[in-house]
Amino acid sequence: MRIIIFGGAGFLGKKLALQLLKKGELSAGGRESQPISQLVVFDRTLAEGLPDDSRLKIMAGDICDEIAIRALLTQPVDVIFHLAAVVSGEAEKNFELGMNVNLHASMQLLELCRELDQHPVIVFASSCAIFGGELSETIRDDTAPTPQSSYGTQKAIVDLLLNDYSRRGFIDGRALRLPTIVVRPGKPNAATSSFASSIIREPLQGQRTSCPVSGDTKVWLLSPRRVTDNFIHAAELPAKKLGRNRNINLPGITVTVNEMIDSLKEVAGADKAELIDWEPDAFIQSIVLTWPPQFVTERALDLGFQRDGAVREIIESFIKDELA
Amino acid sequence: MRIIIFGGAGFLGKKLALQLLKKGELSAGGRESQPISQLVVFDRTLAEGLPDDSRLKIMAGDICDEIAIRALLTQPVDVIFHLAAVVSGEAEKNFELGMNVNLHASMQLLELCRELDQHPVIVFASSCAIFGGELSETIRDDTAPTPQSSYGTQKAIVDLLLNDYSRRGFIDGRALRLPTIVVRPGKPNAATSSFASSIIREPLQGQRTSCPVSGDTKVWLLSPRRVTDNFIHAAELPAKKLGRNRNINLPGITVTVNEMIDSLKEVAGADKAELIDWEPDAFIQSIVLTWPPQFVTERALDLGFQRDGAVREIIESFIKDELA
Repeated sequence: MRIIIFGGAGFLGKKLALQLLKKGELSAGGRESQPISQLVVFDRTLAEGLPDDSRLKIMAGDICDEIAIRALLTQPVDVIFHLAAVVSGEAEKNFELGMNVNLHASMQLLELCRELDQHPVIVFASSCAIFGGELSETIRDDTAPTPQSSYGTQKAIVDLLLNDYSRRGFIDGRALRLPTIVVRPGKPNAATSSFASSIIREPLQGQRTSCPVSGDTKVWLLSPRRVTDNFIHAAELPAKKLGRNRNINLPGITVTVNEMIDSLKEVAGADKAELIDWEPDAFIQSIVLTWPPQFVTERALDLGFQRDGAVREIIESFIKDELA
Repeated sequence: MRIIIFGGAGFLGKKLALQLLKKGELSAGGRESQPISQLVVFDRTLAEGLPDDSRLKIMAGDICDEIAIRALLTQPVDVIFHLAAVVSGEAEKNFELGMNVNLHASMQLLELCRELDQHPVIVFASSCAIFGGELSETIRDDTAPTPQSSYGTQKAIVDLLLNDYSRRGFIDGRALRLPTIVVRPGKPNAATSSFASSIIREPLQGQRTSCPVSGDTKVWLLSPRRVTDNFIHAAELPAKKLGRNRNINLPGITVTVNEMIDSLKEVAGADKAELIDWEPDAFIQSIVLTWPPQFVTERALDLGFQRDGAVREIIESFIKDELA
């Protein structure tokens, strides 16, 4: 069982790598479970902080580089987790970069996999940013993507290709549309949703942070623990269960920013909320307001994907996993 | 006012060209109407049968050829009608050809238009083949594309890009998802829907034809007259009216194959139906059965797009326009 994680140096990629190493085996596409012999963690920079493990191969390279990706695929690969992406805010500000990484590199990866004798399971990190705009507030499993960002557009296109390549038997794909992942460790990034982690993470560590959106802004959340569980679940689902539609709106929970801060106070003390400066940012608020805050994800729940119980649990898990 | 029709040698392209020449002027994107000074009809082969008109420039070339397309765009262009495509059956049988023409050439066209100082109105011939599969029978304006063919996938992707390029102001796009166009003149082609024209066209001319699907198969139809009217209407709609969603499910009518044949008999005599041989084709029937037969196209009707009254009218128009 050889596995590649693209975008493996990001926090989700590393968390997934750790979980796979610990699990030790994987049932690719529902087939008999096999021990993991090699886990390639590929990203622009070498992934740091992963354990010394003979199964682990940490590599640095550009996912746009056809020669590099082709070389990676010369040895048979059973499962690819494709998490590499330019984040939403960056893809909006730099159109060409977003198109190259989020769209063209993904198309190239699919094409290279099509040429292989053994077609891998591909789990793609898509995004709920494919929805938004003028539609109704509640997103169903059959709601049309109407992305209001180039990032969302690029993700929605890869979702479509993943379905067609799977239908034709070129790959065995599964695209998971991720809610906003909260709480991310580390520093704020250029994702438009970065604030949703910052307003929990920074106060918990006694640091000031700013909130660029109003307190009644609703967000659709999933924790890092649940999302990596869901990545692995997606890789192990039998293709038959998925049928022809390989695009899955992951389950999450809908909460307001105020509710998140209330949970922060419950878990860590009322004084933590005083570390948050309310600094409305019209650019970020305008984008966040186009995100639909409510989803009905019957299909994902039927397929066994998991969501969190409450924000309080998400905060407690973050403290245990990242701050302990 | 300079206009380009890509795929202009096909029957719809030529019909559109004739209508534009007759109309003489166009209100691009709802702006003040301007006389048409040049109408470029571009296709793989030189369009035949168009009138001798000094405004007309008939050209042959490959839409995949970047240099040729770039050359076409050196002079300012106000409106592009993008009808060039590898048809559904062919794109299913030759994956690479379909990807190159239907997807990559369209992406390249959008990129070349992005580079222009003056961003053109682009009317794209998308298709109701972007829908299908396991979803409900009735397609709403916000139903997710779930194409069951590579052709449908490629069209759905261009629809998404057209929205994003329009949102960013790189173009002013409008994608029309065409129902099955009936009755097409000429000969059967490799489109999976080719039979829907053949069962009317051939008997009307005293020729035998075969019907590869069962009589109770439902199809979603629009006539050539209405679709060229709708192309021009799309080009003239003010961008404001469209808002951010530039993808439009065109209105049509739902009829069974049997109802089509009944109308044929009414218009041309009962004996015409005896020229149809029922020869079930599992490949074609399996694809046609994935097409949703029922649409609710409120948005298109609100925007002023037109449908036909009944199959009888469609057949009578065909006789008048093509057989007279």
